[in-house]
Amino acid sequence: MQMVCKENGRRFSGRSLSILSIILIMLMVSIPAVTADPTGADTDYSSYVASSTGGAPSLADVASATGHNSVAINIMWTLIAGFLVMFMQAGFAMVETGFVRVKNVAHTMAMNFLVYPLGMLGFFLTGFALMFGGVGPLATLGGYAGLSHEFTINILGHPFGLFGMSGFALIGVYDVGVFALFLFQMVFMDTTATIPTGALAERWKFLAFCIMGFMIGAVIYPLYGNWVWGGGWLAQLGVNFGLGHGHVDFAGSSVVHMTGGVIGLVGALLIGPRIGKYGKDGSVNAIPGHSIPMAIIGTFILAFGWFGFNAGSTMAGGDLRISIVAVNTMLASATGAIMAVAWMWGVRTKKPDPGMACNGMLAGLVAITAPCAFVNQISACIIGLVSGILVVEAVFFVERKLKVDDPVGAVAVHGVNGAWGCLALGLFADGSYGAGWNGVSGTVTGLFYGDASQFIAQIIGVGTNIIVIGILAFITYKLINLITPMRVTPEVEIAGLDVPEVGCPGYVGSIPENEGTA
Amino acid sequence: MQMVCKENGRRFSGRSLSILSIILIMLMVSIPAVTADPTGADTDYSSYVASSTGGAPSLADVASATGHNSVAINIMWTLIAGFLVMFMQAGFAMVETGFVRVKNVAHTMAMNFLVYPLGMLGFFLTGFALMFGGVGPLATLGGYAGLSHEFTINILGHPFGLFGMSGFALIGVYDVGVFALFLFQMVFMDTTATIPTGALAERWKFLAFCIMGFMIGAVIYPLYGNWVWGGGWLAQLGVNFGLGHGHVDFAGSSVVHMTGGVIGLVGALLIGPRIGKYGKDGSVNAIPGHSIPMAIIGTFILAFGWFGFNAGSTMAGGDLRISIVAVNTMLASATGAIMAVAWMWGVRTKKPDPGMACNGMLAGLVAITAPCAFVNQISACIIGLVSGILVVEAVFFVERKLKVDDPVGAVAVHGVNGAWGCLALGLFADGSYGAGWNGVSGTVTGLFYGDASQFIAQIIGVGTNIIVIGILAFITYKLINLITPMRVTPEVEIAGLDVPEVGCPGYVGSIPENEGTA
Amino acid sequence: MQMVCKENGRRFSGRSLSILSIILIMLMVSIPAVTADPTGADTDYSSYVASSTGGAPSLADVASATGHNSVAINIMWTLIAGFLVMFMQAGFAMVETGFVRVKNVAHTMAMNFLVYPLGMLGFFLTGFALMFGGVGPLATLGGYAGLSHEFTINILGHPFGLFGMSGFALIGVYDVGVFALFLFQMVFMDTTATIPTGALAERWKFLAFCIMGFMIGAVIYPLYGNWVWGGGWLAQLGVNFGLGHGHVDFAGSSVVHMTGGVIGLVGALLIGPRIGKYGKDGSVNAIPGHSIPMAIIGTFILAFGWFGFNAGSTMAGGDLRISIVAVNTMLASATGAIMAVAWMWGVRTKKPDPGMACNGMLAGLVAITAPCAFVNQISACIIGLVSGILVVEAVFFVERKLKVDDPVGAVAVHGVNGAWGCLALGLFADGSYGAGWNGVSGTVTGLFYGDASQFIAQIIGVGTNIIVIGILAFITYKLINLITPMRVTPEVEIAGLDVPEVGCPGYVGSIPENEGTA
Repeated sequence: MQMVCKENGRRFSGRSLSILSIILIMLMVSIPAVTADPTGADTDYSSYVASSTGGAPSLADVASATGHNSVAINIMWTLIAGFLVMFMQAGFAMVETGFVRVKNVAHTMAMNFLVYPLGMLGFFLTGFALMFGGVGPLATLGGYAGLSHEFTINILGHPFGLFGMSGFALIGVYDVGVFALFLFQMVFMDTTATIPTGALAERWKFLAFCIMGFMIGAVIYPLYGNWVWGGGWLAQLGVNFGLGHGHVDFAGSSVVHMTGGVIGLVGALLIGPRIGKYGKDGSVNAIPGHSIPMAIIGTFILAFGWFGFNAGSTMAGGDLRISIVAVNTMLASATGAIMAVAWMWGVRTKKPDPGMACNGMLAGLVAITAPCAFVNQISACIIGLVSGILVVEAVFFVERKLKVDDPVGAVAVHGVNGAWGCLALGLFADGSYGAGWNGVSGTVTGLFYGDASQFIAQIIGVGTNIIVIGILAFITYKLINLITPMRVTPEVEIAGLDVPEVGCPGYVGSIPENEGTA
Repeated sequence: MQMVCKENGRRFSGRSLSILSIILIMLMVSIPAVTADPTGADTDYSSYVASSTGGAPSLADVASATGHNSVAINIMWTLIAGFLVMFMQAGFAMVETGFVRVKNVAHTMAMNFLVYPLGMLGFFLTGFALMFGGVGPLATLGGYAGLSHEFTINILGHPFGLFGMSGFALIGVYDVGVFALFLFQMVFMDTTATIPTGALAERWKFLAFCIMGFMIGAVIYPLYGNWVWGGGWLAQLGVNFGLGHGHVDFAGSSVVHMTGGVIGLVGALLIGPRIGKYGKDGSVNAIPGHSIPMAIIGTFILAFGWFGFNAGSTMAGGDLRISIVAVNTMLASATGAIMAVAWMWGVRTKKPDPGMACNGMLAGLVAITAPCAFVNQISACIIGLVSGILVVEAVFFVERKLKVDDPVGAVAVHGVNGAWGCLALGLFADGSYGAGWNGVSGTVTGLFYGDASQFIAQIIGVGTNIIVIGILAFITYKLINLITPMRVTPEVEIAGLDVPEVGCPGYVGSIPENEGTA
Repeated sequence: MQMVCKENGRRFSGRSLSILSIILIMLMVSIPAVTADPTGADTDYSSYVASSTGGAPSLADVASATGHNSVAINIMWTLIAGFLVMFMQAGFAMVETGFVRVKNVAHTMAMNFLVYPLGMLGFFLTGFALMFGGVGPLATLGGYAGLSHEFTINILGHPFGLFGMSGFALIGVYDVGVFALFLFQMVFMDTTATIPTGALAERWKFLAFCIMGFMIGAVIYPLYGNWVWGGGWLAQLGVNFGLGHGHVDFAGSSVVHMTGGVIGLVGALLIGPRIGKYGKDGSVNAIPGHSIPMAIIGTFILAFGWFGFNAGSTMAGGDLRISIVAVNTMLASATGAIMAVAWMWGVRTKKPDPGMACNGMLAGLVAITAPCAFVNQISACIIGLVSGILVVEAVFFVERKLKVDDPVGAVAVHGVNGAWGCLALGLFADGSYGAGWNGVSGTVTGLFYGDASQFIAQIIGVGTNIIVIGILAFITYKLINLITPMRVTPEVEIAGLDVPEVGCPGYVGSIPENEGTA
């Protein structure tokens, strides 16, 4: 169907819009403003409480409504925090893609995109059940008690919880509290699953990645996760052996970040460096990423989502400690970023490197994740400052000493600083929070505040992560290798993975010639 | 004013920053950490409840405070969810612009940007009143009853609500509940209004778009919206004719997405395909979009905002069903994305297409939008899987059989899957939710669970949408054509719409020569 | 370690994924759906209220739990709103970087990134204490009363609060309410700190920027902030001199935006225009930014975060006025954007300029920030419409009359419209909100509703901001100039600041030749 074309269309439109606007202003000013009270502050809201008697609500009615409000506050908080953590997937996609070359943009983006549904599917089918199937009643989320089957063995006369056994595909646990828990924990798992896509970027075969993403959600992540958060043996170290409150990790420095970092390290070791990264004489070549804006905006998205990550981990808006958690998170992110930049500027490259600024902020965030609820603001600043140095040195160490090619610094950010965060909890926990944590009476207290055994529990947790996740990742990579090669061919790698692996380039079309100048 | 330039400025700065940092660490470590309890868990908060007697609060005081908390929880939830939905505008802008060519980037972005305020203005002036002017008391948001004027006709002895008649420009309804409702519903409408900008991209005259954006918000969207959500005749199908609970659409598969898809389809039909899309021999040419990263990040933003879209549609944080809704939303998005990719990879192009991965996730989200609150997690997965196949096949069908040029797949994603979502509710609703919905006793139950009449109500709603929105859109496009041509001239289209239509190119300046390699 | 490469890898993978999917569908359909009620609507939640007696909770128990819920609602709201405001940093980074040239992309991004931690550090160490050290009990956030030391002098027999003196580095105020306040106020400060990076973009020396970012957070912002929000002398104008409720600024049109705009104006004046901006004959050259999509998405992020900015400024989810605030914010953003576009289209350049659309929306948001809680929806629309014209004219005035080179329009958006917003409150406040504000009985009422003295208080606040912030900024810039030159050398400026100043280009690598066309 053809459209009539008026020559004077544009001029007419401009003038008419201006006239319309002016008419609108006059119209609006002429309308009498309303001044009735819309605040609702003075209203009696008691009729809003359901009454069992028909008259004014009884004490039992009000008590039930109050309890319902408390549960609603906690579920709202958990869900909103979970939404924020889910949004971190966009942050990871941008940071990782910003750090790769133009020819691998679509491939890196596609991995970061698909790891979200693939990991989710794995976690839905088996992961959640393995991790939380024996977690017990959901105290803050309504008290549902159906997740109560933990596979446990006895060693040295003590129970060692190994994995959960209820809630596969959420069947039989159709409860609002369980579903809130699932949503929140799923997005945590997907954070882990997306970390290796950075360490193996620019050379990973797409099918191999797909299977690994699924397996992280289905098996690898949930196992260690059960031991720390599902009531497993690392959580029981306190009750069983008197080691503090067992291995404590508030929001996942070990469970989420170390796990991702270790899987990434093993993968990067197995797959080998990118072509051109190391010269035949052992020289190291920088391979700059294609977009600083993408990396920086991605980092902001991650720092934004991290508030949900850490403060949401109370899974209770009614636990007012959320304020302390959020501020500690913010402060450590700042000192991490500043220290990393200062270290680069003053000691290393003599420039305030934007890429390392991003990694410094992320390092501070990773490090504060375990201790965020247990330390004060000064300790949070120190933890961040240390992480800022650690991440710079670890990036250089991994690249130049280990000769492991990790395009985005995932090992340094998530692995090294995940470990540092867990240990920092064992040092700085000030005893103001965590009463009864993991079934141990008293609050969580670190070495500097008098409880050396907590620090030992943290070391055990960190060491276990390296060993167990390292072995599991190695086995899984090897099994995948039976199905598909893990690495693309050299021809594909040199040409770029985009078209061969995912069928389209990341960007199409050059910018037309314009009046502007670069 | 001139600035002094020091030659040694940079080196000095680096060293001084490092020294500053080290001093800072020492300072912080030296500060004694505070250990007072900042959790507030054990405090007596009863003084926080306003007392009418001056002493301890009475039962009536506590009841009123509890009711106030309940309303606050609901309003907070509704507003936060509304903010998330508003943010989806950025997601649509990125997905649509990622799918167009470089020469039309500024034009596509500008449409997606301006549709937000233009649609809002229309909805504010007349749309909200037409849609919700007769909705009745706002049960979850404080109980305000001023929106009570529905224009109703009688057919066959039954009342048919057609449109509301109070709340124009929000005059006379200055209430916190009404304003919360307005905010939430406005951003829903704007989702619809932004869908056609994708289907008509790369050729739509800017002034024509402006008028259409305004009209969708002012008239087209609110009319059908009233029939389903404002108490109109489709909602009354249950009470009047015993068809289930009437046409049920929890969060807008039909009201929002089908409406947008149908308007887009009619528009794309009227405006015709882009130059070069179809050869004279009927051959179909692919016109790849310019940026996969933009499309993927946009999709993540949409998936993030969709949690507000669906879970927010309780308009009550106190309705704990929000957990189920959020998880179902997440699961359907995952299975939609996985299935679309698998279908492309295994059946169609033999590649895991990133663009179709995005459309698959969006299709799953669109499809679960109507049934999200009424189905269980297994059904949500199935609904998503089906939508993943549907979207791929619909994209090919629209492009190759209908020969309609829809650059972003809006018809397949929003139209086809919107219809599928409404029908899926009629099939999979498990009867665990929706007691008293639309004034019909009992819960909402689909065909597979025993209520075939609900499925019929869904079919009627879908059919009505296609017919009524189709006709309204056709008329509106034709009326706009009296004011301005709908399509730019062929010269402008070939050169790109950016400079002629909005006065500036999307991107300026090429990337300078660097040490990096592509 | 070498990987085995299978020739038939890809085809196999596609088919296997399809088969897997089909099996999955069949599996899922075969699982019986569960229909137990997961809503929890009818449950008795009274056991969720902690009982002091062991039996059913007493009235005192319920009262305490209700009060705790109220505080939790307020802290949740404040934190979530704070998170949204923090995310605005990403929005500013995108808008500003979108408006600069390719050669300065990394530099502009790095400034916008590092201003977040640098400003935070300054605000943490001294700024928060100076601003809120004497604010008194935190009524909505739990009632903590430790922030009670305001340095006050007496003039004309009246107390003039000048700055706070408790809470340095948050030491001694380890309380959940204080930490929530800190988080929320910190992100507000960082909004101010990031505004000058736009006005001084493309020529500011990085070290000079770093110090300025820190100083804004540490001293400049908090001082004026204390006078308006910390109980200082501008807030006391009502109590002391009968000028309305003192200078009232709900969410920061003056405290945040004017402060940023004035610092930007002084800086742009001192540093001078970019090379090439003005010809020797006084001609003005347009220097177009490099990415419209970046600017538009950044604007959407800002409009999204602004809901937290304005509606969060109740620091109470229990203050249901949040609905009115959010809707007013939304409406003013829309009318600002529409008016700015209409003014450009109809009066100025005859094109619907996308960049000015962004600035128009931001102008509307800035202008509604002060009055958002005190005006009705019609007034909000008018305030936005006026701001839309103001911003266009101010951009031209600053560029062509003042000959100040402000690459992003920061002075017009934040400075001019910040002032307009404060004055608008003094005109349009309808007396429906603000009872007892700043210790003055009665509600906040503007000139059009009968209280001329409120308008005078607004003028005093605006004038004070220009003078005091102007002088403070001038002194600070001059002090920084003793340490480092404020401007890069002409050679660096012409080559681009990216590599010389931050060590890397913004973008690396050109887009490979593709099958697509531009």
